[in-house]
Amino acid sequence: MIIVGGTATNGIDENLSKLMGARLVKVEHKVFPDGESYIRVPSTLSGEEAVLVQTTQPPQDKNLVELFLTIEALKDVGASKVTVVVPYLAYSRQDRRFLDGEAVSVKTILNIIYRLGGSTLIVVEPHHLESLDYFPGELRVADPLPALAKEVKRLVRRPFVLGPDRGALGRAERMAKELGCEFAFLEKERDRHTGEIRVKSNLGSLKGYDVVLIDDIVSTGGTLVEAAKIAYSLGAESVNATAVHLLLVNGALQKLKEAGVREVIGTNTVIPREKVNLVDISEQIAVKL
Amino acid sequence: MIIVGGTATNGIDENLSKLMGARLVKVEHKVFPDGESYIRVPSTLSGEEAVLVQTTQPPQDKNLVELFLTIEALKDVGASKVTVVVPYLAYSRQDRRFLDGEAVSVKTILNIIYRLGGSTLIVVEPHHLESLDYFPGELRVADPLPALAKEVKRLVRRPFVLGPDRGALGRAERMAKELGCEFAFLEKERDRHTGEIRVKSNLGSLKGYDVVLIDDIVSTGGTLVEAAKIAYSLGAESVNATAVHLLLVNGALQKLKEAGVREVIGTNTVIPREKVNLVDISEQIAVKL
Repeated sequence: MIIVGGTATNGIDENLSKLMGARLVKVEHKVFPDGESYIRVPSTLSGEEAVLVQTTQPPQDKNLVELFLTIEALKDVGASKVTVVVPYLAYSRQDRRFLDGEAVSVKTILNIIYRLGGSTLIVVEPHHLESLDYFPGELRVADPLPALAKEVKRLVRRPFVLGPDRGALGRAERMAKELGCEFAFLEKERDRHTGEIRVKSNLGSLKGYDVVLIDDIVSTGGTLVEAAKIAYSLGAESVNATAVHLLLVNGALQKLKEAGVREVIGTNTVIPREKVNLVDISEQIAVKL
Repeated sequence: MIIVGGTATNGIDENLSKLMGARLVKVEHKVFPDGESYIRVPSTLSGEEAVLVQTTQPPQDKNLVELFLTIEALKDVGASKVTVVVPYLAYSRQDRRFLDGEAVSVKTILNIIYRLGGSTLIVVEPHHLESLDYFPGELRVADPLPALAKEVKRLVRRPFVLGPDRGALGRAERMAKELGCEFAFLEKERDRHTGEIRVKSNLGSLKGYDVVLIDDIVSTGGTLVEAAKIAYSLGAESVNATAVHLLLVNGALQKLKEAGVREVIGTNTVIPREKVNLVDISEQIAVKL
């Protein structure tokens, strides 16, 4: 097995190489003046099992196209098997059709990966696990919660896990188990007349607790800002935000800080522009290899 | 046949609709705050032959991913056939392997288009025609030279067509035939000691001629700037630049103007940021439908 570092790895390729005691090779890469990517893989990969590491954090489409080009280059050079490690899988939230004619984008992405020759796929917990059913090959999912929980324990004294919506319930429950603490979740409801989204809470007092919000992906941060306000209104000592994939676009970190969020903790599946606490996810991936 | 306007069409979808007397529908499209694209196609396309127009000018990777998503959405909605019109095919210059392990990027792109369900592909003359052999489906190539020649005739009095390198020879010959004038080409040679690229010219005097340079793609403009200097040194009355696809990155237009290039003429397969003469290529595409 040879670890192949793609064009966006966040250091996970190097960590995997050390953890697995496997050789690491890097994809040769440049971008032409017009914006086209150039990819070259070492021809020494002929006959080898290649484990390609390529995350698809923003710019998602560039990282995706480079992923596609690299998979085919690895097959062309004669790799006997291509396992693809995509720590953050872009488009994973577009996994079902709410309206006729909508692209189920994650299906297209997963199909392309498989058809180009990526026969096994490893991702870190995506938005919905079911979305990965679209992948026709062998699938393995790395669990980020133990690594996140370890960091939460280091930074937070008296945790109480709060899922910001019903979708976060399972994740909140698992995180609470890791931390050995209580958990709850908030429910959003849409006003039938105004269309306004309100968050319903049947929670009791959070006095004395360091609330740990947990979500899968934080994009603009709107959901967590709302949840932080509620947690503080219920007397929380502090509110902290954890997520698997911290995209943090449109000033999300600033908004979270303004809402009083103390610690923001994510994993290195995505490295956002702003400085936040990121835990390394390589060990959780390594156990899947 | 229904024309489907993708997310990057340069108006070619509307022109095709008029020329063919075919109904036009537009892809619904937005970009989420994190940079992911959303695509929705009309469900009325069920059972219909869809002709999807989507160029892949910069940002190439975004336009490519949106192309991929749209093809699959059209198949999912039940289109009986998807013909894909890609006026400018990105990555067409990466069509052969010069070094072991290099990605033959255009092969990957063409394979993805076909495997997602684009069974027929129409492109406007790419870098090398042979590169299209990688497309497993039915292929049709639109010829941009008649449209370009018409515009050259309008702007230039006494043309002499000059290909800036050996690769442009065939294109120069065809353009000269359209214009009813003479042609020649320049030869680049690399100095074996210094690595420097020099342009060799065995041309006689160009006195009194309006030189018409022709190339397929103009990216940074370096090749044409070099050729313009030689043409002026041989007494050209004026030098003009024509190309199929004008990417014009890194201040290319400015450099061309500084080298004395008078008219810059391209087609609307690509719309660069700078204002240049662009001729509409829709008629040449329509005859292929």
